Amino acid sequence: MSALFGLVSLVGAGPGSADYLTLKGLRRLQEADVVFHDALVTPEVLAFAGNAECIDVGKRADRESTPQDVIEAALLAASRQGLRVVRLKGGDPFVFGRGGEEALALVAAGVPFEVVPGVSAAIAAPALGGIPVTHRGVSPAVLVVNGSIVDQFDRVISGIVPGSITVVAMMALRTRESIARRLIERGWTPNTPAAVVVGASTDREWTWRGNVIELASLQIPSDRRDLPGTLVVGAVAALPLHTDPLRTIGVEHVGA
Amino acid sequence: MSALFGLVSLVGAGPGSADYLTLKGLRRLQEADVVFHDALVTPEVLAFAGNAECIDVGKRADRESTPQDVIEAALLAASRQGLRVVRLKGGDPFVFGRGGEEALALVAAGVPFEVVPGVSAAIAAPALGGIPVTHRGVSPAVLVVNGSIVDQFDRVISGIVPGSITVVAMMALRTRESIARRLIERGWTPNTPAAVVVGASTDREWTWRGNVIELASLQIPSDRRDLPGTLVVGAVAALPLHTDPLRTIGVEHVGA
Repeated sequence: MSALFGLVSLVGAGPGSADYLTLKGLRRLQEADVVFHDALVTPEVLAFAGNAECIDVGKRADRESTPQDVIEAALLAASRQGLRVVRLKGGDPFVFGRGGEEALALVAAGVPFEVVPGVSAAIAAPALGGIPVTHRGVSPAVLVVNGSIVDQFDRVISGIVPGSITVVAMMALRTRESIARRLIERGWTPNTPAAVVVGASTDREWTWRGNVIELASLQIPSDRRDLPGTLVVGAVAALPLHTDPLRTIGVEHVGA
Repeated sequence: MSALFGLVSLVGAGPGSADYLTLKGLRRLQEADVVFHDALVTPEVLAFAGNAECIDVGKRADRESTPQDVIEAALLAASRQGLRVVRLKGGDPFVFGRGGEEALALVAAGVPFEVVPGVSAAIAAPALGGIPVTHRGVSPAVLVVNGSIVDQFDRVISGIVPGSITVVAMMALRTRESIARRLIERGWTPNTPAAVVVGASTDREWTWRGNVIELASLQIPSDRRDLPGTLVVGAVAALPLHTDPLRTIGVEHVGA
């Protein structure tokens, strides 16, 4: 390993709020010379990279995007300059983050890298909406699946005993109607509990609860449609945890 | 909500190292009057709760354990004393952490609570072992399942197209032989890649890679058998990310 290369850290930023950045993620941002970040990373998290050049390489469905090979080439180039590089991704870098692809490119080039796991929205967004993805006697497992490609989603769920486990679909806001329909075609009952959490952990967080048939016609408020969303299907979505104590603003000040 | 109650925070401690504690988790520990923690939580993380009374209510397979109802009663009692209470769990509180049950008990009692999601070992342990649980073109989904009850595990995987997605089994070290056998009976080929990561993120981390048939006869070193382990099955476990740059000790000092 050459000392000419700078370390590249693939860092998970968590679901949005800096509350869910990890201590190692924070340290890597503070030490970084350059940060390549996704569109989902919030200004609050980026603010920790005060000394670094921050470059938005975000890919969102509707927007101008940076091709994956260009991102990988930029990581390599920065490392070869001896810079400390952070590749900052929303959630966890290895859950639909293409972090694995970037890691392979870095390995192939002989560049030193590390992964700094983060809090995945797949688990945290439901939790912040009051939904445990597993629950004794209710769901012994959780399937986390890319919901953006409906046929692929359908193949993944095709063999699962309907309603037997929690299904969390990521990147599924646009496809929610098709996903709801496929679930019903595969045997999920229309009244299977469902929930959507958008903008989890941010001050724009919005949570909806209902069932699968209602999911098909769900309208997301127009001022929330730009936010990342997590879709949850299964009995856990009906657990009565979405009560006042959890949701109360100012709960931080209760007590001693 | 009465000001007589102290806030109860269900906090995820992450996989082990304090590196993966979140900023909010850190704050809650620093502010806590009392911390009820699992056996899996490391001294390194507990050290942040310097001003709090720390009470081990851990449940491990072989050891003396605190019954769940006793834990829940203790949380309520501490809250009613107006204390700031942290319930600290390894990984994420809502992934096989019984956090949902504790949250329900708190809601039922009218106690203010919040969940502070953490970095789940289900995702982070594979990542730290060089394995992305999802990877474009390799695995479009990950199933996270309790592996401690073999028949339940078998029901969960029964319909899944063998090899089509990543399977992560938690609490499955003791049952690994049965789990390997069930996977093969359900159609997974014996040479499906598999990995085990124990003590992820700690200085006792140990990673094994092989395939499902080898998993059945895997010997875990005797000095590692007390550590929590994560089992991964699927093509992602064979991605060539476990190379020197990732594993090199001292990688933090490479570069500028």
